[in-house]
Amino acid sequence: MSVTAPQGFTASGVTAGLKPSGKPDLALVVNTGPSQVAAARFTKNRVQAAPVLWTKQVMTTGSLRAVVLNSGGANACTGPDGFADTHKTAEKTADALDCGAVEVAVCSTGLIGERLDMDKLLPAVEDAAKNLAADGGRAAAEAIMTTDTTAKTAAYVSDEGWTIGAMAKGAGMLAPSLATMLVTVTTDAKVDALAADSALAAACDRTFDRLDSDGSTSTNDTVLLMSSGAVDVTPDPVEFTEALASVCHSLAQSMLGDAEGATKEIAITVQNAATEEEAVQVGRAVARDNLVKCAFFGEDPNWGRILAAVGCTDAAFDPDRLAVAINGVRICENGCAAADRSLVDLSARAVDVTVDLDAGGHSATVWTTDLTHDYVHENSAYST
Amino acid sequence: MSVTAPQGFTASGVTAGLKPSGKPDLALVVNTGPSQVAAARFTKNRVQAAPVLWTKQVMTTGSLRAVVLNSGGANACTGPDGFADTHKTAEKTADALDCGAVEVAVCSTGLIGERLDMDKLLPAVEDAAKNLAADGGRAAAEAIMTTDTTAKTAAYVSDEGWTIGAMAKGAGMLAPSLATMLVTVTTDAKVDALAADSALAAACDRTFDRLDSDGSTSTNDTVLLMSSGAVDVTPDPVEFTEALASVCHSLAQSMLGDAEGATKEIAITVQNAATEEEAVQVGRAVARDNLVKCAFFGEDPNWGRILAAVGCTDAAFDPDRLAVAINGVRICENGCAAADRSLVDLSARAVDVTVDLDAGGHSATVWTTDLTHDYVHENSAYST
Repeated sequence: MSVTAPQGFTASGVTAGLKPSGKPDLALVVNTGPSQVAAARFTKNRVQAAPVLWTKQVMTTGSLRAVVLNSGGANACTGPDGFADTHKTAEKTADALDCGAVEVAVCSTGLIGERLDMDKLLPAVEDAAKNLAADGGRAAAEAIMTTDTTAKTAAYVSDEGWTIGAMAKGAGMLAPSLATMLVTVTTDAKVDALAADSALAAACDRTFDRLDSDGSTSTNDTVLLMSSGAVDVTPDPVEFTEALASVCHSLAQSMLGDAEGATKEIAITVQNAATEEEAVQVGRAVARDNLVKCAFFGEDPNWGRILAAVGCTDAAFDPDRLAVAINGVRICENGCAAADRSLVDLSARAVDVTVDLDAGGHSATVWTTDLTHDYVHENSAYST
Repeated sequence: MSVTAPQGFTASGVTAGLKPSGKPDLALVVNTGPSQVAAARFTKNRVQAAPVLWTKQVMTTGSLRAVVLNSGGANACTGPDGFADTHKTAEKTADALDCGAVEVAVCSTGLIGERLDMDKLLPAVEDAAKNLAADGGRAAAEAIMTTDTTAKTAAYVSDEGWTIGAMAKGAGMLAPSLATMLVTVTTDAKVDALAADSALAAACDRTFDRLDSDGSTSTNDTVLLMSSGAVDVTPDPVEFTEALASVCHSLAQSMLGDAEGATKEIAITVQNAATEEEAVQVGRAVARDNLVKCAFFGEDPNWGRILAAVGCTDAAFDPDRLAVAINGVRICENGCAAADRSLVDLSARAVDVTVDLDAGGHSATVWTTDLTHDYVHENSAYST
């Protein structure tokens, strides 16, 4: 149930040899039509990898025949030569599929600052094109893994017969603006470019954009949506957006569950904010606070650190009316200690934090992880 | 050479029993005049401890007879009862010194969210008043330590005969808006309230406000400057500000050197920014990035992560013109890899990072530490 779950798509995953491990590292997803509508969302980081710069240009057409994705190298901070490499990758893919390079999106993930080995990558593109299959989604999902411990896929099947399929890679550097991840979503529903774009924007806003494992924002984040229109049904826009959001939420939770070195998955729900934006702002401030994250690793219901994080925002609230509940125990009320901290059980992996701002009627949930020895270990040793 | 280095000050440090360790935890610093000019800077966190709320009121007079400081409890998030405790502490101090409570600043540091044991604290105030001594600065500096491994003091002696003395506590949660710290600075120079305030603002802006060990901002940060005018010299404002800044810089470096769990002290200098504010903004973004901080712990000159952090700011720069040097090796130029990464020696504790934005003529330095196993350990176990 990956990107080939919907009709009108083939995919493959092959080994180019970009990864030292020798595991699969090149994926290809092809929309066989009849329609080739596409939409995309990109990292908001101003330092953008060559494949992001390329794919942004491609996406101005609102149409996509294929996406070629590699792990084993981000092709970021590689200058004009790196951009030329991306261009060559798109051209090679276009040649193999008998289309134009402008119809091919490129995504890369891995270390920043190093050129890709094109002598390995380009032959693998041909190989991937030869291996395209209607059940190739799983192989594609496996080929985009980096520090992921599991391939991440999701799907949704509507009562009307249309389907959404998706794959993602992402296990670290999760932050808003799409969380260091590559996501490809496919559907056989008939959607036009405008509907695809607005549905994708709304779905990302509520899911990927609210993951924040360490506040860092990647140079390569890309979410693509491709529609084949192979099922002759135009879905209700609201239902389609909800379905897309449910698929994105499922992938987001998979990424959270696989975040590097984490022992806790923490949902921070901010209630009674003046606006939804302020609820998100406060949720992120708590999600990014290293002292809060360390406290959860230590299974310490340290609500004081949560209040200190809330206090660094400019959201509307009165410090003397703040309340915090951890796993259902209202441990802070009116800005002071309330229920006994020993009542809070933090032994499970899932943690629910609720912050009540008492300043309005809006709420939002942001997801994060704890800060652990393993996080430090993985991220201090990653490139060496 | 602590707060009693200048003439016109006495100080003491005693044991109230607030700390489980039984170490000294209450300090008193008294200005014996003839002048009682004072200035202060406070945390910008909107969740402010009771002693901060109290001392802000006191400081509206621009005058201070004494400051009483306790470790072993922050008295933050303790509501009206906590504020009453601070008020009682000021009154008890005022009684002992035969002055008004409005002339007494209060500072507290330690865990958030718990009331202070006033039955222990109030008798200790009397004890501290009895122990006041013209050489009591060292004892006072020791009594405000929390996770500090050393008492932090500094002094400056001018050619004109006036002196600045200072003490600080601060070892974790270092962030702008004064870095979880309590600082008391004394001087026997004659300065009026306006001169004291502007000199303190300028000195803090370039020193404490540019420390950032983990991006967290405390509820209790307070910097106080007290002038006794016991030496009849009115210093040149520029010289006085420079002297004050040198004392603050020395304390800031002591705090950086003592930051919880750090193995590296990292100076991030941002050059050729469009404005000094943007230089500071970029420096902070790099200083706070967990992936950058983990890389330095791993002695990995990962300039790609530095670029990714720079890219999250809205400072003026062209990604293709960014340059990064680490310990003098220009490892990134024009946004791409330059010198061989193996040339960068990161074995020493001190690390110098230079980011060149090529967007103007302004620069600033921000100081931070690495993110280590010990940081996680100390901060996950602190309150349990």
